[in-house]
Amino acid sequence: MKGYFITLEGGDGSGKSSILQTLSAKLTGMGYDVLATREPGGIEIAEKIRGIILDPAHTAMDGRTEALLYAASRRQHLIEVVLPALKSGKIVLCDRFVDSSLAYQGYARGLGMEEVFLINKFAIQDAMPDLTLFLDIEPKKGLARIAANKDRERNRLDLEEIRFHEQVYEAYQLLVSRYPHRIQVINADQPFTQVECDAVKYIDFHLKNKQKRGEEP
Amino acid sequence: MKGYFITLEGGDGSGKSSILQTLSAKLTGMGYDVLATREPGGIEIAEKIRGIILDPAHTAMDGRTEALLYAASRRQHLIEVVLPALKSGKIVLCDRFVDSSLAYQGYARGLGMEEVFLINKFAIQDAMPDLTLFLDIEPKKGLARIAANKDRERNRLDLEEIRFHEQVYEAYQLLVSRYPHRIQVINADQPFTQVECDAVKYIDFHLKNKQKRGEEP
Repeated sequence: MKGYFITLEGGDGSGKSSILQTLSAKLTGMGYDVLATREPGGIEIAEKIRGIILDPAHTAMDGRTEALLYAASRRQHLIEVVLPALKSGKIVLCDRFVDSSLAYQGYARGLGMEEVFLINKFAIQDAMPDLTLFLDIEPKKGLARIAANKDRERNRLDLEEIRFHEQVYEAYQLLVSRYPHRIQVINADQPFTQVECDAVKYIDFHLKNKQKRGEEP
Repeated sequence: MKGYFITLEGGDGSGKSSILQTLSAKLTGMGYDVLATREPGGIEIAEKIRGIILDPAHTAMDGRTEALLYAASRRQHLIEVVLPALKSGKIVLCDRFVDSSLAYQGYARGLGMEEVFLINKFAIQDAMPDLTLFLDIEPKKGLARIAANKDRERNRLDLEEIRFHEQVYEAYQLLVSRYPHRIQVINADQPFTQVECDAVKYIDFHLKNKQKRGEEP
């Protein structure tokens, strides 16, 4: 695998999606070959799976069904988008990946992080991210940002209560302590330009380190 | 769990679906409270998942995506149909279950039976069948039966080659030797009434044994 796989993680309202776009532009400006994506990413099969998960009519959906569907959507997006891009040497920036399932389904929905990791391991095999940026902001502040943004489409997850989001946050803290070399914490409770600046700094640092070790890109 | 969970397994054209209906009627006539079903079984979420798997347009579907989708559909059908029926004391007859995924995805598609078992274990937890009837017929004979039945709807699986079905058959042989107490082999290369007769005999034997041990039903 010649490329470099970076994932963005964080609770709802942590600003991942906005950061993803500007990060992509900045890194491209610095001469890197970048692909920014998020599951299901326009991949027909993955989009259809995601449609089933997010349909507000599906209130009977079991938590394990949901976790298996996320893993299935992830697999197809990985095969059709992420792996081909990495193979061609690109830097892949992906908005949410395995850690989101561990935090949301494994911890907050109580299925167990180890069990949810097993099905995700089946889905991704060895394609773990080289680097993960965790956008760190208190759930209440993140949710307040969402509430302020009236244009945002509401789906089933947005209707969950504050307690759920606090559990997601707890889970991310656990993941940060479990994977200290892979996950880099970024303070997301700062002005947007500063968050962006920190993210670029960490990515550039990791890529330079990779180049020093004689690896591409 | 008060009820009794029976699954029917076998290659394409082994006659499972026909047997399921007559078995259900016979056992009901013998005084048992029976529910006959098959995934996705009219369950909205499971039906939609199955629709994605069987859409002939989805030629890009990865084998692991497919296996995760089967497990997701299985989970939802189990939660909404099988477990409530078992809880109310019924005998549940299910056309295909975990063994089908082990044989088709795990072995014939080469994903590995152990790995496919892991994601199915996540899906079903402790709900393994009490008894599994394997309808044993050589793949060539089974496929010839399908070819003779012009009314049968063709889907993606029907287009696979004979080699694939031979591997499915090999896999079932492995499962029979691995689970000799759970899986009962039935010769399906006999007149329909004889297959039906053998199936009823085995089920009645197992249920009587269960009653002798003082268990319901």
